[in-house]
Amino acid sequence: MAALKKRVYAVLEGRDWADGTTRIVNGLLIGLIVANVISLMLESMAGVRAQFGETIRVFDAVSVVIFTVEWLLRVWSSTASPRYVGAAGRVRFAMTPMALIDLLAILPFWLPMVGLDLRVLRILRLFRLFRILKLARYSQALQTFGRVVTRKREELITLLMVLGVLLLIASSLMYYVEHEAQPEAFSSIPATMWWGIATLTTVGYGDVYPITTGGKLLGSVIAVLGIGMFALPTGILGAAFVDELAQRRLREGGQDSAGSEDDTPDHCPHCGKSLKVEREAVGSE
Amino acid sequence: MAALKKRVYAVLEGRDWADGTTRIVNGLLIGLIVANVISLMLESMAGVRAQFGETIRVFDAVSVVIFTVEWLLRVWSSTASPRYVGAAGRVRFAMTPMALIDLLAILPFWLPMVGLDLRVLRILRLFRLFRILKLARYSQALQTFGRVVTRKREELITLLMVLGVLLLIASSLMYYVEHEAQPEAFSSIPATMWWGIATLTTVGYGDVYPITTGGKLLGSVIAVLGIGMFALPTGILGAAFVDELAQRRLREGGQDSAGSEDDTPDHCPHCGKSLKVEREAVGSE
Amino acid sequence: MAALKKRVYAVLEGRDWADGTTRIVNGLLIGLIVANVISLMLESMAGVRAQFGETIRVFDAVSVVIFTVEWLLRVWSSTASPRYVGAAGRVRFAMTPMALIDLLAILPFWLPMVGLDLRVLRILRLFRLFRILKLARYSQALQTFGRVVTRKREELITLLMVLGVLLLIASSLMYYVEHEAQPEAFSSIPATMWWGIATLTTVGYGDVYPITTGGKLLGSVIAVLGIGMFALPTGILGAAFVDELAQRRLREGGQDSAGSEDDTPDHCPHCGKSLKVEREAVGSE
Amino acid sequence: MAALKKRVYAVLEGRDWADGTTRIVNGLLIGLIVANVISLMLESMAGVRAQFGETIRVFDAVSVVIFTVEWLLRVWSSTASPRYVGAAGRVRFAMTPMALIDLLAILPFWLPMVGLDLRVLRILRLFRLFRILKLARYSQALQTFGRVVTRKREELITLLMVLGVLLLIASSLMYYVEHEAQPEAFSSIPATMWWGIATLTTVGYGDVYPITTGGKLLGSVIAVLGIGMFALPTGILGAAFVDELAQRRLREGGQDSAGSEDDTPDHCPHCGKSLKVEREAVGSE
Repeated sequence: MAALKKRVYAVLEGRDWADGTTRIVNGLLIGLIVANVISLMLESMAGVRAQFGETIRVFDAVSVVIFTVEWLLRVWSSTASPRYVGAAGRVRFAMTPMALIDLLAILPFWLPMVGLDLRVLRILRLFRLFRILKLARYSQALQTFGRVVTRKREELITLLMVLGVLLLIASSLMYYVEHEAQPEAFSSIPATMWWGIATLTTVGYGDVYPITTGGKLLGSVIAVLGIGMFALPTGILGAAFVDELAQRRLREGGQDSAGSEDDTPDHCPHCGKSLKVEREAVGSE
Repeated sequence: MAALKKRVYAVLEGRDWADGTTRIVNGLLIGLIVANVISLMLESMAGVRAQFGETIRVFDAVSVVIFTVEWLLRVWSSTASPRYVGAAGRVRFAMTPMALIDLLAILPFWLPMVGLDLRVLRILRLFRLFRILKLARYSQALQTFGRVVTRKREELITLLMVLGVLLLIASSLMYYVEHEAQPEAFSSIPATMWWGIATLTTVGYGDVYPITTGGKLLGSVIAVLGIGMFALPTGILGAAFVDELAQRRLREGGQDSAGSEDDTPDHCPHCGKSLKVEREAVGSE
Repeated sequence: MAALKKRVYAVLEGRDWADGTTRIVNGLLIGLIVANVISLMLESMAGVRAQFGETIRVFDAVSVVIFTVEWLLRVWSSTASPRYVGAAGRVRFAMTPMALIDLLAILPFWLPMVGLDLRVLRILRLFRLFRILKLARYSQALQTFGRVVTRKREELITLLMVLGVLLLIASSLMYYVEHEAQPEAFSSIPATMWWGIATLTTVGYGDVYPITTGGKLLGSVIAVLGIGMFALPTGILGAAFVDELAQRRLREGGQDSAGSEDDTPDHCPHCGKSLKVEREAVGSE
Repeated sequence: MAALKKRVYAVLEGRDWADGTTRIVNGLLIGLIVANVISLMLESMAGVRAQFGETIRVFDAVSVVIFTVEWLLRVWSSTASPRYVGAAGRVRFAMTPMALIDLLAILPFWLPMVGLDLRVLRILRLFRLFRILKLARYSQALQTFGRVVTRKREELITLLMVLGVLLLIASSLMYYVEHEAQPEAFSSIPATMWWGIATLTTVGYGDVYPITTGGKLLGSVIAVLGIGMFALPTGILGAAFVDELAQRRLREGGQDSAGSEDDTPDHCPHCGKSLKVEREAVGSE
């Protein structure tokens, strides 16, 4: 039993992709997730829904059953890991972000069975979107992105606060300037914020824009400030992303720093890139 | 009295957040500022104003009284600080940016009582927006942003001048090219500048755009130049922002500089890279 | 014959621009490509097509014949290069990206002669666009760009995946929020993705935009996330592009590496900074 | 005479701003340029032109006379500089960019007097815009910007070529996909390029956009590629701009590198910033 649990855990966590069972099980799970995302999109199309609505519903039910079994097996086998020993460990495992996503992806299907109101249900159907996030377990890209955002949390919150205060001031001023000329589009400060976001992010749908001279002057200043809104995250996220990918490569490379015994550095002390190949090339001449 | 003044100063300046009174007083002030910002937004909504207009006016009056007491206490207690000794020190304190913001946030309420014209008053109501900026005292995010902008003052002014000249040339040319085809939208050079800003910042509302072939050619060139407008601040602001946050972390994590016994720093205070190797290299010459 | 083949290869590959024939042949080929691109554009204009349609068709035929001869000569002479010896070498040459582009640029003209359906033909005419890409052989700019994209392949795929998942979640949520209010514009999740792309890339045509309060709130969040979409590739592509150009300059300015007599490089080949000091430092230990 | 010439040259070139005459003359010239730019803008406004047209024309004539005298004095006194000795030197001076701008700014006024056609004249009036560029002589901001663009010439041309090819391919494909559904907006490949520019630069006016599913798919891909168009110049221009400003500061600072005699570096070898202050601060403890 303990051996089976260990095996189930190893397979589901996808530790060893050289193992055939691991490859097949996880491959099927990835395929099912992608199929679920496609089915979610298809179901939203009226024509498809009319014709294949029943099929999609059946496919959804089958998927949920499989995902539920997956979630139960994960929670059951989690105690095989030294990190989640005993009942407390199992609860801790069930509280990890990925396990919670797994749970939220199946919950909306089972809840009505325990007697939940239908209106709440409609909102809960949105939780099917969490199935997309199940992909994060298999995608290094999404994990890298997640780590970058986590590492630069503080900077991003700073930026959002600055953006928020800027948006509030810009929208308040614009409301006072433009409200009289366009009482519909700039009906209140919160309503004006929709214009503020479209301008500061430079999206500029064109559904609302100032028409008075004062409003255009103010709008110009805010549009220019919007350029700054692009400048700040660029320095932060871009550098962190490059960094994160370089570290991942180092982790995967490993052997880079090991065997060198000569008195010259292996990596450029400025940019961290390898100097090995170049040197050998020169040395062999 | 001197001890009370010192205490009031310490509490209001929020020097020691471990102190209970400091935490409570500043917490209440932050709450009041946020409530004022929300009330400003709510008041602008016709429905809310109709129903709760009186309540909001009373809340505004109460807030102003509290903010006035806060300002008076700050100015009175400022002489407790060695930086603002005597009457001259008090005046200097009242002239600091944060004290001026505090004053401007309450002034529009008291001014009509000394007999100011009502039309001027309407504009002065805009000064209530300064209450948002009172948050800057408590928000490291806004302070960081402010410092970045201050440090890169010169670069930003350079950029604004380039943007201004570019905008002027772009709009003048476009006016000559497009005026005849669209005498309304491109009625004059200043009017064409509204199109110029929307294009150079890539907001592109779509309320004005060239329709002649010449105008579209010119507009294309200017839209491409707009990309450059995003490129320049990015290098400047982004790097400065990362820098500023790194320095703040260094200031906060004081122990970094503790253990070193020689009189030269180990790391460059600007980019954080080690200075060790280089120094030894020079020493060994 | 072998000498002629060698000469044809050298001329067509443009190895030695100091050679007169090479300059003339390649100059004419570049001119013909540019003329073809212009003719493609002119042909799409109804007025020009009506008047010069026949001329353009003749010019197209002549061009294809020349490009076919060029392709045949390239494939025939390829075995003159030590890299493509024998029949297998010739096939390998024909499979290189540039040779394939050359083939695809002429194929749609010859295929109907072997009896292809006319409807397929219309799509094949698009292949004439490949003639633009023939310029890549002569343009260092396009080659540099191609190398940057190739080197940063992994990062770019990561970004596209993140963008894809973000787009999917944003569009699904928006569909649920806005579908009832605007059943036309937000008719399904795939249809809503058109709005999602316009917002995340901040293009914002303004043909679709949310009108409900919930939709505007969600749209605001997504527009702000769109700023992040600009931040990530900036750090990656910008740095790689600067790097690539610096390396190209190093390759071209060969004399840089000449005078040094020891077997280690003086400058990091990646960032160009001196490695001297560090090495001496290590050596003196 | 030679002394007067020398003095005129020194004053006009603004070598020594501590000199009273230099300050007054150049101050007046800057003021006149700014006044001319404002007058150009005012003249384009129908209301102002109707009322003050005559005044503006007189002001324009007076300005041109002053600018002509300025240009003549500059050319006459240029031989006072060792760089422009003799008649050949004078011609070389007249061919410098700034001298050409000065000439082009006055030429359109004098040309009709030598009997030029009136229709050509209308276009020549555009040359009055060159008066804005006369400011470049006095603005370090514009000079810095000019130097950055000059230094990164090669990179920017590379980018423009990539952008051009991308635009051509995108517009050609879009024309084939969308022409049938919207024969007006996507009437030809050159016409479709207007859409292409608006999308690749993310301006997105919203006057043209694809409506077919194929067109929207293609438009999505191109909008995402537009993000890349922002990423590339950012790395190049941003870094070059920061660099240029740092160099200017070094040039102005000068004394930084002089008096240091101790064995520690003055500047961080990584980022080039001064290490002086920090070290002295630590040393004085």
